Amino acid sequence: MTTQRLTRKGQATRDRIVTAAARLMIEQGVARTTIEDIQAAAGVSPSQLYHYFPGKDALVSAVIEQQTAQVLEIQHSGLGSLDTIDSLTNWRDLMVGILTGMQCAGGCPLGSLASDLSESDPVARVQLAGAFEQWEGLIRDGLVRMRERGELAADADPADLAVAMLAAVQGGLLLSQVRRDPAPLRIAVDTMIDHLHALTR
Amino acid sequence: MTTQRLTRKGQATRDRIVTAAARLMIEQGVARTTIEDIQAAAGVSPSQLYHYFPGKDALVSAVIEQQTAQVLEIQHSGLGSLDTIDSLTNWRDLMVGILTGMQCAGGCPLGSLASDLSESDPVARVQLAGAFEQWEGLIRDGLVRMRERGELAADADPADLAVAMLAAVQGGLLLSQVRRDPAPLRIAVDTMIDHLHALTR
Repeated sequence: MTTQRLTRKGQATRDRIVTAAARLMIEQGVARTTIEDIQAAAGVSPSQLYHYFPGKDALVSAVIEQQTAQVLEIQHSGLGSLDTIDSLTNWRDLMVGILTGMQCAGGCPLGSLASDLSESDPVARVQLAGAFEQWEGLIRDGLVRMRERGELAADADPADLAVAMLAAVQGGLLLSQVRRDPAPLRIAVDTMIDHLHALTR
Repeated sequence: MTTQRLTRKGQATRDRIVTAAARLMIEQGVARTTIEDIQAAAGVSPSQLYHYFPGKDALVSAVIEQQTAQVLEIQHSGLGSLDTIDSLTNWRDLMVGILTGMQCAGGCPLGSLASDLSESDPVARVQLAGAFEQWEGLIRDGLVRMRERGELAADADPADLAVAMLAAVQGGLLLSQVRRDPAPLRIAVDTMIDHLHALTR
């Protein structure tokens, strides 16, 4: 069922189900989350849930889609386009602030789903790989613009630097999650910003 | 039951159970792994398994202990002490080689367990935080020695750089896992080595 066909009320119900599923799947893992848990958390009947989602796979896919949109929204929201050292520093502050607000629980929603599903669900793995590619693309585009303006050395490689920055974010979030301390995320991203700064002319 | 009390045969049986449990838990996640799966994979009877492990929590703890030892062993094995740019480059090659040999499946065993268990198992989370601290300590010790020998700038911070390097490894492994491509791990660690190189005097 495409979302285009839904009434506004139907869309709101569908969104409520996806939001409840996302919270449970990211918090406790996909395998530990039952359809019944999601029904209860979303406050919908079994027939309502099955009206929108024929099964757990469809819910997983909708959760990845929703979380991807939210993560990419954070890149855009008021941060401009990540194409100056200042905007990257603001982006770091935003991520650290969100993490601190969550007491460092949960990690990156996309990273948690990727670790959870990469070996057990090939379809979800491909969908998540696409999400990370989009995210990396936003970082890369900003670095390309910095290089075009002469703010990054001509021989700096925006593609590789974007991969390294996304890895710093993912690894930093995982270490922050396991230690319940925002420091690893802050330090990992700061080190990459220092590295870019050293390449800035 | 402490491992000291076991006979050699008993130790071998216990090791076989832990190895089977580790493979299943890392591949398919802890929640998807049943005691029956582990019994079947290890080729032991229920009473044999329960003789060594009273339940799944004890198995999870033994798996984390085994995987921590294996990861730290990789740091040590023939790589010297990660205290030169060359030894860091060899370490990167070793990790990329292991990952490529596994067709990029599975990710980092400790990272996968951390993502899987951080929200659902507080005891495992603390045990994993300790494992990452030991790993980070090995990286930090090498950077401290580099700084002492004057190979790293006096104002470089080995503690922060070790956090950033471990984050690069974890994030790189996750991106490599989800993309089934060793490039993200290689690029993330290479970027950190480039950064250290720029700080090398």
